[in-house]
Amino acid sequence: MKAIQIALLGMGTVGTGVVKVLANNARSIQQKVGAPVVIKKILVKNPDKVRNITTEAQLVTSIDEILHDSDIKIVVEVMGGELPAKDYMLAALKAGKHVVTANKDVVAKYGRELFDAAAETHTDFLFEASVGGGIPIIRPLKQCLAANQISEIMGIVNGTTNYMLSKMTNEQMDYSDVLAEAQAKGYAEADPSADVGGYDAARKIAILASIGFGARVTLEDVYIEGITNITIEDIEYARELGFVIKLLAVAKQDDRGINVRVHPAFLPVTHPLAAVNDVFNAIFVKGDAVGETMFYGRGAGELPTASAVTADIIDVARDIRHNVSSRILCTCFEQKPIYPVSKTESPYYIRLLVEDKPGVLAAIAGAFGAQQVSLHSVIQKRKVECATELVLITYRVSDENIRLAMNTLLGMSMVSKVGNVIRVEAEQIS
Amino acid sequence: MKAIQIALLGMGTVGTGVVKVLANNARSIQQKVGAPVVIKKILVKNPDKVRNITTEAQLVTSIDEILHDSDIKIVVEVMGGELPAKDYMLAALKAGKHVVTANKDVVAKYGRELFDAAAETHTDFLFEASVGGGIPIIRPLKQCLAANQISEIMGIVNGTTNYMLSKMTNEQMDYSDVLAEAQAKGYAEADPSADVGGYDAARKIAILASIGFGARVTLEDVYIEGITNITIEDIEYARELGFVIKLLAVAKQDDRGINVRVHPAFLPVTHPLAAVNDVFNAIFVKGDAVGETMFYGRGAGELPTASAVTADIIDVARDIRHNVSSRILCTCFEQKPIYPVSKTESPYYIRLLVEDKPGVLAAIAGAFGAQQVSLHSVIQKRKVECATELVLITYRVSDENIRLAMNTLLGMSMVSKVGNVIRVEAEQIS
Repeated sequence: MKAIQIALLGMGTVGTGVVKVLANNARSIQQKVGAPVVIKKILVKNPDKVRNITTEAQLVTSIDEILHDSDIKIVVEVMGGELPAKDYMLAALKAGKHVVTANKDVVAKYGRELFDAAAETHTDFLFEASVGGGIPIIRPLKQCLAANQISEIMGIVNGTTNYMLSKMTNEQMDYSDVLAEAQAKGYAEADPSADVGGYDAARKIAILASIGFGARVTLEDVYIEGITNITIEDIEYARELGFVIKLLAVAKQDDRGINVRVHPAFLPVTHPLAAVNDVFNAIFVKGDAVGETMFYGRGAGELPTASAVTADIIDVARDIRHNVSSRILCTCFEQKPIYPVSKTESPYYIRLLVEDKPGVLAAIAGAFGAQQVSLHSVIQKRKVECATELVLITYRVSDENIRLAMNTLLGMSMVSKVGNVIRVEAEQIS
Repeated sequence: MKAIQIALLGMGTVGTGVVKVLANNARSIQQKVGAPVVIKKILVKNPDKVRNITTEAQLVTSIDEILHDSDIKIVVEVMGGELPAKDYMLAALKAGKHVVTANKDVVAKYGRELFDAAAETHTDFLFEASVGGGIPIIRPLKQCLAANQISEIMGIVNGTTNYMLSKMTNEQMDYSDVLAEAQAKGYAEADPSADVGGYDAARKIAILASIGFGARVTLEDVYIEGITNITIEDIEYARELGFVIKLLAVAKQDDRGINVRVHPAFLPVTHPLAAVNDVFNAIFVKGDAVGETMFYGRGAGELPTASAVTADIIDVARDIRHNVSSRILCTCFEQKPIYPVSKTESPYYIRLLVEDKPGVLAAIAGAFGAQQVSLHSVIQKRKVECATELVLITYRVSDENIRLAMNTLLGMSMVSKVGNVIRVEAEQIS
């Protein structure tokens, strides 16, 4: 059977992983596809660079050598970054080549354009590896849960921050130490802002929400709060109260429309996502028929990501063998309103430093009450010099009201500091 | 766009669920498929039975009315049981109709025959709902993890027994009470043996192993032990030692071949499967590229199972729209040796009732030592009349050696009873 020839764009971590997986499991992949899958060319910046992997593929430095090679049926984009990756993919689709990518930035920002190009030229455009690394989530959402109205997607989709929060929780390390360690281990980049600022997670949840809800959601639609304000004190209070702090990517759909957000949250220790530690990712999906499901695994890394990329390659190769394409393209059939985070509701954890004198608690409770914020529990914690640390958990209130209440509190002389305000994702406090 | 017409075989719990899901989400399903999906006929025993659901489908009592109806492109088997379900499916495939089924019994026993028929007539044969209810697992294993060499599949795939063990663990109920309650709630059948005996789980793990390892595994290949011997004492000792008891379905592949088994096991509380409670199911899969992944959700029930069945219907409908079929059929390309459970190794938990006198422990340790069984820990527990309960955890030993050691022990006058012998699934005790 004639080999199916492909090209890789990029030979970094993920590209190297794809070379290895295609080599290691060549026999079973050939059985599944019904033909060998062979890498003919790899686009690299420097073909002379010493690499710790051998491949029979031809290393090329110009995209044209791939675009104009009619043997190449599948272009696998694993170079990362928005440009030129997006332009290369678009050109490949327009040249009638199928495209597989691991690039969340491009899918989140230019998904529509790429899907349109694929539809026009009857090609496949697959991107399983763009969210959750090796975890099967795109295909499950698009196919396995296709019969559902999805109401909620909630995930831990950034391994770096989950590693950091796990370390803070399990080893009582503080934020700056754990960031330094993550950087030393290569889990966090020198400029860690895409991870710790929540932007990486935001792109991923935009992709998941678009698929789950059948309506385009872009990065601009996502409310984003990172983990840079999380302190060891917050982690400890969470533990005392039966919670863990996770950076959650949340997408909800109800009769008001769609809300999508990334922020740290208190999660009950009994929640399936609470046990997801270190660099593992997990995505929790709720549908009207299936109920609650969860997908768990390694959210990044050479081989896990290559597992997802190669699965897409196999899927396209099966399509080529069966002479079919574009079986499943864009599923954003609807336009749905996005409602702002100010209209979302949840219980909140609030940590305050207040004056240590009679009447303070009453005044604070009054300020909350004026904004319809009811307190579920109030815990007076340790003394800090001549002040007292107060930890409050509210009942379910709107983000808008909590902000108004916090503004009032900040204007009160007896409140010396707001330590933190963190959402609580718990059904039981309602 | 012309509707795609289907027929259901059976209108029990799952069939009713499929009718509901296709009705509730008709609009989005039509968008995804590119055509409406309409149930034309439903095969029932008694068309006059009062049902709490309305459908415009025609209720028929003869399979011929479906097999000979050329409008019907997809036959959805949700009647359950081996026969006549298998004959009907085979006839449908031979009549050129695509088949979707939720029937683990038939898939586990007659999978090859049905796949062969599908290959011959260029039809699709899909069975996502046969394992794990609503949990996407068949398609993820077949497609999303297709690039992997799978070394291990370990799952909680029977909701009835997981509900029972969860109740025993969390509410200290004993086996017979919890079985009676499960029967009262409809979670367990009047004859509960398929569930508590492990046979249901065995069929499911045979299906998963076949797909994961690319080699046919049948029910006869599965070693089966149910939960009928699990007592509240075992559950309590497990808890004390940091474990929970779960009915595990385990399939492993190594250079000796494949081993597949169903049995209760001690699982460390930190294992991702340990937190899977009540009627939830979860399947843990280890692959050479992806590492560890887990799929979690509702393993049974009207709507969760219908979610999976309808996903398959949508997939077939997409194939019909794109004029393609049999894209992915049987993936059992290899024949692999099955090695018996006697050659498997694990640590073991052993509970014994022994005479309360000096020298007993030495004699018992000697009997174990003679079979190369080393003891990781020995705990002397409560007195029971004039005997002492002894709880042992061994290091990793072969099943063969543990059986030999237990035989010796049973012949020793100082051992009055063997309470239980349960495998421990833990990497740390090795």
